[in-house]
Amino acid sequence: MTSVQQILESSKRDHDRYLTEFRQYLSIPSISTLSEHKQDMQRCAEWLANQLRRIGFNNVEIIATAGHPIAYGEWLNAPGKPSVLVYGHYDVQPVDPLNEWASPPFEPSVRGDNIYARGASDMKGQGHAVLKALEAWLKSGGLPVNVKVFFEGEEEIGSRNLELFLEKDKSRLKCDLVLNCDSQILRPDVPSLVYGLRGLAYFDVYVYGAKGDLHSGLFGGAVHNPAQVLCELITGMHDANGHVTLPGFYNKVRVLSKEERSELALTPISDDALKEMTGTKLLYGEKGFTSMERIGARPSLEVNGLLSGFTGEGSKTVLPAKAMAKISMRLVPEQDSGAVESQLREYLRKSAPQTVTWEVKSLASDQAVLVDRDTPAMRAAARALQATFGVNPVFQLGGGSVPVVSMVKTKLGVDSVLLGFGLPDDNIHAPNEKQHLPTYYRGIETYIRFFDLISQK
Amino acid sequence: MTSVQQILESSKRDHDRYLTEFRQYLSIPSISTLSEHKQDMQRCAEWLANQLRRIGFNNVEIIATAGHPIAYGEWLNAPGKPSVLVYGHYDVQPVDPLNEWASPPFEPSVRGDNIYARGASDMKGQGHAVLKALEAWLKSGGLPVNVKVFFEGEEEIGSRNLELFLEKDKSRLKCDLVLNCDSQILRPDVPSLVYGLRGLAYFDVYVYGAKGDLHSGLFGGAVHNPAQVLCELITGMHDANGHVTLPGFYNKVRVLSKEERSELALTPISDDALKEMTGTKLLYGEKGFTSMERIGARPSLEVNGLLSGFTGEGSKTVLPAKAMAKISMRLVPEQDSGAVESQLREYLRKSAPQTVTWEVKSLASDQAVLVDRDTPAMRAAARALQATFGVNPVFQLGGGSVPVVSMVKTKLGVDSVLLGFGLPDDNIHAPNEKQHLPTYYRGIETYIRFFDLISQK
Repeated sequence: MTSVQQILESSKRDHDRYLTEFRQYLSIPSISTLSEHKQDMQRCAEWLANQLRRIGFNNVEIIATAGHPIAYGEWLNAPGKPSVLVYGHYDVQPVDPLNEWASPPFEPSVRGDNIYARGASDMKGQGHAVLKALEAWLKSGGLPVNVKVFFEGEEEIGSRNLELFLEKDKSRLKCDLVLNCDSQILRPDVPSLVYGLRGLAYFDVYVYGAKGDLHSGLFGGAVHNPAQVLCELITGMHDANGHVTLPGFYNKVRVLSKEERSELALTPISDDALKEMTGTKLLYGEKGFTSMERIGARPSLEVNGLLSGFTGEGSKTVLPAKAMAKISMRLVPEQDSGAVESQLREYLRKSAPQTVTWEVKSLASDQAVLVDRDTPAMRAAARALQATFGVNPVFQLGGGSVPVVSMVKTKLGVDSVLLGFGLPDDNIHAPNEKQHLPTYYRGIETYIRFFDLISQK
Repeated sequence: MTSVQQILESSKRDHDRYLTEFRQYLSIPSISTLSEHKQDMQRCAEWLANQLRRIGFNNVEIIATAGHPIAYGEWLNAPGKPSVLVYGHYDVQPVDPLNEWASPPFEPSVRGDNIYARGASDMKGQGHAVLKALEAWLKSGGLPVNVKVFFEGEEEIGSRNLELFLEKDKSRLKCDLVLNCDSQILRPDVPSLVYGLRGLAYFDVYVYGAKGDLHSGLFGGAVHNPAQVLCELITGMHDANGHVTLPGFYNKVRVLSKEERSELALTPISDDALKEMTGTKLLYGEKGFTSMERIGARPSLEVNGLLSGFTGEGSKTVLPAKAMAKISMRLVPEQDSGAVESQLREYLRKSAPQTVTWEVKSLASDQAVLVDRDTPAMRAAARALQATFGVNPVFQLGGGSVPVVSMVKTKLGVDSVLLGFGLPDDNIHAPNEKQHLPTYYRGIETYIRFFDLISQK
């Protein structure tokens, strides 16, 4: 059999072709949350299935769900070797505000070291990188482990049909570990491994006042304005120290150990770097914690959207009939997203004035996770990163949510290795999303090494 | 010459034709604030000019301004008689939210006693009614007074080119009084005359945070959210008693006399009627004042619109880069709209945290007015209402703003009579705007009588 070194060399010669294919993948507007993109979702799943077939996978299938389909394939010709379940998602976030993109979001554009397109970093980049690593092994004759691959189409909308899929296809998905590619490293020169992830609870909150919009001259002053009430309710959700005030919000929050705090302090992202990345003059957050702790280890509550009344050009003197906010909480172990919904409802019951009515709709939820750092799979990932980047990876608590990590633990009983190659300044979920191409190529290299190292355990 | 009674009889026989014409007028989507309706504005001004020509007016002209044109005409064949300047506006408010209209806003629909269309009450209804009253007189041989008519196209966007027009055409517009038709009565069976109007100061307030939208998982908790900051700033604009907190906001507010308070208490709109009209369970407003005082005699501050982040279907975990609110104040004598802008800026300077930047754009402003209730013109209006409705009118402080009233006082040196036939439940500036047809016909009758009574002074 070919050596890992030869596979790496051979893979390098294919970089141009990889990029051409990556562009194709990025050109499909697979926005899962917008119903007008339903056909693009199907097309994207088919594109992945064709890839899997072409590189040599078997039993390739597009599996229908109640929502968007799952692309699945397997290669099980390494008897006695571990089975790795590779997870990815092919859906992407919406693109608005469209006018802030320097190039159209579904016409990938390479500028400098980066390729710009919606999904480039979250996560078509790493999804494509792992497929290319698998292809490189198969070109050389075969994989050193058994591999099952599945890409879902609903990660950006809460993976709502994934649990049922994991349950129904439990036997087919049997594996020793999950390689979850939906992750990041800290900097192009600082590889990292995520061992904890925040959970999510996401809501639409509506406040209703009059039965219809009113003229602010004829009624202003005598009727409670639901936009003002919503602002007051949102204001009350934090105290002056940046703590969230929902009753019981911090009850179950795991207290950071001294060791974890010192380790988080080693994260090579300074407050100055965060300011630079975000373009803010001053950072802000919960008193008593560093920025890295606020992002990775503390829960937060954010307003994701506000809408009420007239928002067009000019002056319409309307007293709105209703106001809406999208509000989400990032959760940490051991917070429970269901409990957080109850806390939000209790807060609104206690705080909303009798002049209005309100409504809460839960849109997505996900528990926070912590994974064991000392498993053969984590060690293999760390060694693969070290060999590729030339430095040891930093262990990290991730701020985002990857719902599938807790799901595969519950449903399949296996841990996940989070190994992905996004960067913090990739503008994911925002205009001008990008992937750093040298990091994408190093990602392919790391995955090639990971499959080798995991087979040796 | 024909008697007033004969003119009223003859006019009644034309009701069907009036309604057909009224529908035509309502079908023109003359939304002044939206640039895509520029041609409709021109078309609407031409429609009015043709009406004026057809009913017998002279020197009919469409007068260009820096914005939308003014339709003008005159009939000056009553030597020795007073000159009345009739004011109206032909522009209307935007129609969103469109999906809440039971019938399309520019396809007038008669249901029961009402005609539904954008502008039906504000103010194509009264604009058309006064034209029909003039037509009825001219059909009988001539008007009992000299009349100049002008309809502007920018009332809903702050009448921004009106001042220059009044200044430039001062000699042509010379008159003894202004009949301003942009007004309401209290109930179909309770005619009323407005002697005071609130002013307006309208602003866009922007709060800016990060340079672009951020992923709420990767940054949430460590960066100040401008949507949250905006909510906090809006919250701080009122205290717990519903008083506005802008520094100095009440300094110049005229204190209501005991007499005015007793008179306002006679307004036949109960709190229950207000609840019914607005569809609210409970009213709300500044402590220590009745609803009628809050609307007519006290200033107020309203959020007219809110926009930030993701507001579409589903859950986008974005930490917005900016947030916007449309905020306007209804002002009372002697508040100054310029001073209010300074107060808003001072409030933001003191209250906005250093983590964000902010911006204020002034969109419209107008001073509050009080007019003398004991003039020949006011007495003529009161008698015309009494003769038509069979009861004496109630004197009223109006909550809305009619910028032209203060402008004609300043520029032409004349007082206005506010005589119009909208109703408080007409849904003006809101979906399903309507005009009550029996009141529209009584409006025509009242105007016919008014021109007679004013000629007798």
